[in-house]
Amino acid sequence: MAKREDISDYIIAPDPDGAGLSTAVQGIDHDGKPQVINVVTERPLTIFLNSQEIVTAMTIGDHPKYLALGFLRNQGMLKDADDVLRVDYDDDLETVVVRTASKTTYEEKMKKKTRTSGCAVGTVFGDMMEGLEGVVLPDLKVKTSDLYALASKINRTPSLYLTAGAIHGTVLCHGARPMVYMEDVGRHNAVDKIAGWMLSEGVSAGDKVLYTTGRMTSEMVIKTAMMGIPVLASRSGFTAWGVEIARQVGLTLIGRMRGRRFICLSGEDRLLRDVDPADVADEPRKSGRKGAV
Amino acid sequence: MAKREDISDYIIAPDPDGAGLSTAVQGIDHDGKPQVINVVTERPLTIFLNSQEIVTAMTIGDHPKYLALGFLRNQGMLKDADDVLRVDYDDDLETVVVRTASKTTYEEKMKKKTRTSGCAVGTVFGDMMEGLEGVVLPDLKVKTSDLYALASKINRTPSLYLTAGAIHGTVLCHGARPMVYMEDVGRHNAVDKIAGWMLSEGVSAGDKVLYTTGRMTSEMVIKTAMMGIPVLASRSGFTAWGVEIARQVGLTLIGRMRGRRFICLSGEDRLLRDVDPADVADEPRKSGRKGAV
Repeated sequence: MAKREDISDYIIAPDPDGAGLSTAVQGIDHDGKPQVINVVTERPLTIFLNSQEIVTAMTIGDHPKYLALGFLRNQGMLKDADDVLRVDYDDDLETVVVRTASKTTYEEKMKKKTRTSGCAVGTVFGDMMEGLEGVVLPDLKVKTSDLYALASKINRTPSLYLTAGAIHGTVLCHGARPMVYMEDVGRHNAVDKIAGWMLSEGVSAGDKVLYTTGRMTSEMVIKTAMMGIPVLASRSGFTAWGVEIARQVGLTLIGRMRGRRFICLSGEDRLLRDVDPADVADEPRKSGRKGAV
Repeated sequence: MAKREDISDYIIAPDPDGAGLSTAVQGIDHDGKPQVINVVTERPLTIFLNSQEIVTAMTIGDHPKYLALGFLRNQGMLKDADDVLRVDYDDDLETVVVRTASKTTYEEKMKKKTRTSGCAVGTVFGDMMEGLEGVVLPDLKVKTSDLYALASKINRTPSLYLTAGAIHGTVLCHGARPMVYMEDVGRHNAVDKIAGWMLSEGVSAGDKVLYTTGRMTSEMVIKTAMMGIPVLASRSGFTAWGVEIARQVGLTLIGRMRGRRFICLSGEDRLLRDVDPADVADEPRKSGRKGAV
């Protein structure tokens, strides 16, 4: 077993033993023997913007307020300037209500909404592409030594993924430090929770790297750009449209990060190659991480 | 490299070299060397039921008519009895229009619709739970020797997953035979394409097994039950709600299928243990398949 990472450096780390985030379920294995395994929770959360019901997301249920704020922000329904008065979460009703002082433009937006389906999307698309107009991502330099350090730290961090599987993680990183590590049944929820945390805390985006365990689809690329983060890295793969959008908005896209290997399909100029990959340890076979290519 | 499977026994097999399904993209690897890799396509497809726009799905783009039919069927918007007059696909407009002779109940349904977000869901939920009322899944017996044979055949079948990654597969199986193998960026699209094919061809569901490379979330479980298929198997894991719904509707749920190992969390009574797992070859390390736990 690889050494587990010290998590004291995180602002928010995963909570693999968090109450309600996973459930022990009894089953029967290939040998016909009873086995108890941990499976992740999945529950609905309905997000309201003032009196308007916006969406029902399926989530593990932690950080509901960040999820609501981040979702609205990444959909372009909540602008930086919108004055959020308060955010109310009701556990019994499984709702979050985000209240703003002034009217938002969401009512007009709702008309244009298309519902999208499927794992690779799941949220509302038209607006998101619109929201990218005018996005300028800063000229950050990213050391490859930092990228390797991040991947190694994140893979060893205790997580729901390691205890229960069937979950995605997204990590906000600064230099070689993973700062906030969110997990959720949908990778989009995980990234929205990070966006909500950043909005709540007023955290800068231009000097950060976003790391995801999941695939870099068009929607993941759009959300990252909407957040103003110039670099998206993943141990998983790409879609063609994700690459195309990243190139259009000038987002650095690094995928298939495994041990010393990676491939950069967009924004290569941000990479500062300060380490010889031959000197980087390759991923141990039993890394605990599998992750779709 | 494991032996590649003969695909002549499939009715529909993946088309890894299919025009437009993947794109060669140039990037730069960890050593700074140019690399060309294949990435899967992702494009919008807007589905209409008569004159009503229903959804925009992100898809690799193959079998658009099956996707449209299956999506509408699995959402409960198209009943068995609905007389589909014709299905028109327009490649330029990226639309499919499904025309029925009589009015469907979709207009009423649309009012109740909630939009869901995130990888684990992505489609419309309220109706789907409603649609499960009255579903009775037949008392099929499934040989574990057939399950092992299916997993082995499917893993060796040439696929977009093996050439480009970042994609999910769903396979309709009968006994030890994988019949129809669909792939898509979202696992929900892959299962909807199978549902559309079954509807078009009038294929029985009660004697089939559905195999998916992805996680068995609540939505995957609901879709499988809506299709009337009594067994869902996967090399990936579970969510707690997926397990709960499977138990409620009496669906057999088999997960984490890797080599000789699996775990059954619901409907164990359908399994016919006709082979000793010790006699089953374990998965080779270089199986080509990784897949989230």
